[in-house]
Amino acid sequence: MNAIEALVGEFGRLPGIGRKTAQRLTYYLLKSSREDARRLARAIDRVAEEVRACGTCANLSDLDPCEYCRDGRREQAQICVVEEASDIAAIEKSGNFAGLYHVLGGRLSPLDGVGPNDLNIRVLLERLRSGVRELIIATNPSVEGEATATYLHRLVSTSEEVRVTRLARGLPVGGDLEYADGVTIAEAFSGRREM
Amino acid sequence: MNAIEALVGEFGRLPGIGRKTAQRLTYYLLKSSREDARRLARAIDRVAEEVRACGTCANLSDLDPCEYCRDGRREQAQICVVEEASDIAAIEKSGNFAGLYHVLGGRLSPLDGVGPNDLNIRVLLERLRSGVRELIIATNPSVEGEATATYLHRLVSTSEEVRVTRLARGLPVGGDLEYADGVTIAEAFSGRREM
Repeated sequence: MNAIEALVGEFGRLPGIGRKTAQRLTYYLLKSSREDARRLARAIDRVAEEVRACGTCANLSDLDPCEYCRDGRREQAQICVVEEASDIAAIEKSGNFAGLYHVLGGRLSPLDGVGPNDLNIRVLLERLRSGVRELIIATNPSVEGEATATYLHRLVSTSEEVRVTRLARGLPVGGDLEYADGVTIAEAFSGRREM
Repeated sequence: MNAIEALVGEFGRLPGIGRKTAQRLTYYLLKSSREDARRLARAIDRVAEEVRACGTCANLSDLDPCEYCRDGRREQAQICVVEEASDIAAIEKSGNFAGLYHVLGGRLSPLDGVGPNDLNIRVLLERLRSGVRELIIATNPSVEGEATATYLHRLVSTSEEVRVTRLARGLPVGGDLEYADGVTIAEAFSGRREM
């Protein structure tokens, strides 16, 4: 296979990138400087070589412990549980949380054969024994995410003296009531607050 | 900058890839095998190292002459002029042309400071002297593409005995008349054919 076809094929493997986009990206790299293309290749290599799951929270990082686990200024008594390491970036960007994280590495999904033993739960329970006072469950607002939250809540409330919370459900800011789905509107009603 | 941020930044430089998509691609590579990531990096390196503009037609290829220019079975008397090397893939996919190509490397665009001397025209005129009988102008159906086609037509018709054609304009197949723009409909009318 020639070099262009090979790269179109590799780009096309990435999620959300169809053949046309893969071609566009390939020809873009061909038109840009060779240095730009090499820098992208080096950045991919670096991620493949250096990034590992943090031994404490399973966040993906080139440091172990990761940048959050090693930061003594963060609130050590709060742990926010997320499904994937990529969720951490979204939370950090919002700037509303300064505690620690814990990455489950997925969510309970019996249909896909994902049970509790496939998630990073054992280490979480160990971490909860060292002075943690609040576990904030930030799994996705999906059926599986809810099931995972419920499972964790039961597990933790029976074994530890930890306050368990989960992120609020409701209308997304900047959204439009007209286009919100019924379940979200129902959550927004049941979670309504005094003004 | 850490490895993840660096790769998100590099992906984000690519056209049509915003920060969220760049993050999604980065985390996808982190979740897939290290081998997959390295294969993508190697494919990018290969394109940067091996692909050059063909000395004859300026197509981008790891061969010089490129696969079309070196193929003696292709019709040597027809040259199809395109703006970019990436246009060739679309034409080849349609399977309706078996002649040679010529890549201009852009289109005339006075506003962007692109004049005739910035395009690969001199070599085209030389090629036309060696038995070419038809020049098919396949520049884009945009204002600049039209201007480029008109310029080439004048240039060639005064200096050579070559038939100059351009691709037909009209309704795209599978399109919807209701959503076609007025100029396209006008072209479709003026180019209408006997059934």
